[in-house]
Amino acid sequence: MGLQNTRKSNYSEWYQDIIKAADLAENSLSRGCMVIKPWGFGLWEHIQKNLDVKIKETGHDNYYFPIFIPLSLFQKEANHVEGFAKEMAVVTHSRLINDNGKLVPASPLEEPLVVRPTSETIIAESFSKWVNSYRDLPVLMNQWANVVRWEMRPRIFLRTCEFLWQEGHTAHSSEAEAIEETLKMLEVYRVISEEYMAMPVIVGEKCESERFPGAKNTYCIESMMQDGRALQAGTSHYLGQNFAKSANITFQNKNNEQEYAYTTSWGVSTRLIGGLIMTHSDDEGLRTPPRIAPSQVVIVPIYRNEEDEAKVVEYANKLKSELEATQAFGEKIRVKFDNRDKAPIDKRWEYIRKGAPLVIEVGPKDIEKNSVAVNIRNKFDDKGRIAKEFIAFDEFVAKAGSMLENMQKEMFEAAKSLLDNNIREDISTWEEFQAYFKPKNAFLDDSKSTPAFVKAKWCGDAETEEKLKELAVTIRCIPLQQSGTTGKCVITGKDATMDVIFARSY
Amino acid sequence: MGLQNTRKSNYSEWYQDIIKAADLAENSLSRGCMVIKPWGFGLWEHIQKNLDVKIKETGHDNYYFPIFIPLSLFQKEANHVEGFAKEMAVVTHSRLINDNGKLVPASPLEEPLVVRPTSETIIAESFSKWVNSYRDLPVLMNQWANVVRWEMRPRIFLRTCEFLWQEGHTAHSSEAEAIEETLKMLEVYRVISEEYMAMPVIVGEKCESERFPGAKNTYCIESMMQDGRALQAGTSHYLGQNFAKSANITFQNKNNEQEYAYTTSWGVSTRLIGGLIMTHSDDEGLRTPPRIAPSQVVIVPIYRNEEDEAKVVEYANKLKSELEATQAFGEKIRVKFDNRDKAPIDKRWEYIRKGAPLVIEVGPKDIEKNSVAVNIRNKFDDKGRIAKEFIAFDEFVAKAGSMLENMQKEMFEAAKSLLDNNIREDISTWEEFQAYFKPKNAFLDDSKSTPAFVKAKWCGDAETEEKLKELAVTIRCIPLQQSGTTGKCVITGKDATMDVIFARSY
Repeated sequence: MGLQNTRKSNYSEWYQDIIKAADLAENSLSRGCMVIKPWGFGLWEHIQKNLDVKIKETGHDNYYFPIFIPLSLFQKEANHVEGFAKEMAVVTHSRLINDNGKLVPASPLEEPLVVRPTSETIIAESFSKWVNSYRDLPVLMNQWANVVRWEMRPRIFLRTCEFLWQEGHTAHSSEAEAIEETLKMLEVYRVISEEYMAMPVIVGEKCESERFPGAKNTYCIESMMQDGRALQAGTSHYLGQNFAKSANITFQNKNNEQEYAYTTSWGVSTRLIGGLIMTHSDDEGLRTPPRIAPSQVVIVPIYRNEEDEAKVVEYANKLKSELEATQAFGEKIRVKFDNRDKAPIDKRWEYIRKGAPLVIEVGPKDIEKNSVAVNIRNKFDDKGRIAKEFIAFDEFVAKAGSMLENMQKEMFEAAKSLLDNNIREDISTWEEFQAYFKPKNAFLDDSKSTPAFVKAKWCGDAETEEKLKELAVTIRCIPLQQSGTTGKCVITGKDATMDVIFARSY
Repeated sequence: MGLQNTRKSNYSEWYQDIIKAADLAENSLSRGCMVIKPWGFGLWEHIQKNLDVKIKETGHDNYYFPIFIPLSLFQKEANHVEGFAKEMAVVTHSRLINDNGKLVPASPLEEPLVVRPTSETIIAESFSKWVNSYRDLPVLMNQWANVVRWEMRPRIFLRTCEFLWQEGHTAHSSEAEAIEETLKMLEVYRVISEEYMAMPVIVGEKCESERFPGAKNTYCIESMMQDGRALQAGTSHYLGQNFAKSANITFQNKNNEQEYAYTTSWGVSTRLIGGLIMTHSDDEGLRTPPRIAPSQVVIVPIYRNEEDEAKVVEYANKLKSELEATQAFGEKIRVKFDNRDKAPIDKRWEYIRKGAPLVIEVGPKDIEKNSVAVNIRNKFDDKGRIAKEFIAFDEFVAKAGSMLENMQKEMFEAAKSLLDNNIREDISTWEEFQAYFKPKNAFLDDSKSTPAFVKAKWCGDAETEEKLKELAVTIRCIPLQQSGTTGKCVITGKDATMDVIFARSY
């Protein structure tokens, strides 16, 4: 009942298998764009709901800005346009006409419109209008939106031409306050990733070559996938006065002087779901972190005749309503009773593959014993099968919440030890480094020798990154937590103090 | 402190004034697209949250489909493409290049992409893939999305090039079930409009000329604005087998025969906010229905020195937390304490203009008397000023919930009597009809003789609609509730049984 590919046999195909088996999303007829299906969209809704609360708690309001950006606005910030020009959907016409039986674009626009790949430029124009005095600052805004980047090699959730995200944009009266904001939202992302998605991350700053186009500093959370590759899961940018200058966001400061504002931007996207898949799933399918699972408990009824059906449905409904009166993570438990006309065994496997945390089977025998059969998605018996425990009805109702909370903790801890155990800190020369990153395909459960992250000293010379390119390795981040020691740059051998994380990445 | 324009002096300018005064939205630098600001977006979030619950309760799942539709897909349904071709943003290029210092579109696409004006065509393709047997039906999906229609005369919320909406799409194994679905969602829209937005509607069917392009039947909710014009607030379409045929959605029915599925679609959009404004607002600003108000109670502190400030802030925070422990509409009351550095009188007016239901002023004198000053947004004193009541602290905490619930009821009743009192049923000849619709600008509070809705018999001949066009009047709907009587068509004088609603519209 498992997947066609395993993590060991073909990690990349396994990823596609999971998406299909859990019915998360599929490719659409619109090139590079995906159709997100209910279980996948449900994950996004729960990420969104929890993140939205935190964005509001930190003082931000939701706005909505246009999907189109006039070309002239987009090109105001030189680095910004250079970074995005290669992957842009451009609207050039505003109607279609019938030309000898064939529909063709007509009514060309005076100025082409870019479909937003990100909204700094158009939002900065509004800030410029809204901000006059230090009293108008800070402006703290966020929007939930779709964006388009014309990816040449699209991959569902990880790199799609269209994706969903939130983008925060703020303007401040001082550099210090703007940097504080940048780091505050980075911390919010860490919390969402670690505490909600059970996905541990390294928090750090990007080196210059990996910065957001137009940013002064880019901060990120980086997570480790099960093949040892890094996934950039979220970024937070201190934009300095770059966009303030290009859009003329000025304010009168307390000394009555005109000053450019200091802006930030930060975002996470449906890419997080790609990270979730590759952090938690196994060869049976997805494992969904209980805190954001669309359904935390799924009840599958088993019956063979109408008499049994009536009894089982009653029992299942009772279980559902009693569970819904209890809580996990401070919220009502989300229970689904699936009484579709479909074989119970197929339903069980459907939810195992979707990674529903607890899948409950109830049939006439369970009713007799007043118990339930609980499939626990992250536990396995001694034959390697997903653990099934028979638990008394009342006992299960009483402890379902703590079972879900424990599973969340266990999933985080499993991912955290994968990360912690696969950061090599003992590689100090370029020879060792090259040898370590030679094996290109890796699956980490196998052996500690397969490549994951290397934490080592770096001298900071931009040229050194050329040598990394040959190994298909990049500097993922300069962790905020630095050792403070001095050593030798792992690439050049020069004296260096900076600890950085090197890895292959998605 | 009121607006520049009143409903009587210039209704259309008054509408723009309200949007500005309540800071709901503004025009953007992207032609015809709006920037929705926090109070406006907050209204949308509350409409969305409540409607989403009802969409899910009626068995639908949320999906997300691409923003782009390949041209070839879009043109499969002939009526559909004809209806939308004139107002379509078309993406033709996938990058920008620097041509002598000027950025120009490059890398033309093999096939142009339409920015979705609605998603029937691309969703039908997926349905075709997912549906094989009657066991796969019904498919019940919804998505929250942005759509683009190239409006020539854009107007914020009412007609914008980009707007936000939800679009439901379903496929069924029988016509009866599909029609039942169409009407079920129409009823959900009625409930959202009447019970949440306090906006009464007439529920009916559109005549043929007003149908959605590609639909067999279009049902609608129509509301009456304060100037007597109709606003189509939501539509639900029975699509028959039209899209099933163009996209080949077939299934094996219970008799083992191949059959085309029966589909529906239904949507409401940010246009609802335009309806809300024109239903409830007065010459002071917006009035927000409490059930969907971003903040239901706003506390404005009044103090002149630091000593007072400490006391007032403590008192205000106590009020906030005690109010938040109470409920309105079965939910925690939403309270905002606005302690920005700004004159209290300006803050008070800001929230009056935003239409916050209850605006509370608290200063040292209120603390002495252990009371609060409550501005009640929909009540006026004998001088025509917004009513301010002084209520004991504990008493106010105890009754804030019921005050909000009453206000919701009163706002609905006020709008309902406007509607009920302005449907003329005594116009039976074409001469009377013409005379009635002559005065073009109207404000209903003024006189019963200004034009609003006419309910009269119609023979159903499509040619008669030409005569209506000369009066800028349309048939808004054929109400589901029919009298069953026979009479004469108000246009042709022929025998007719059908009751219809005639009106000018937005």
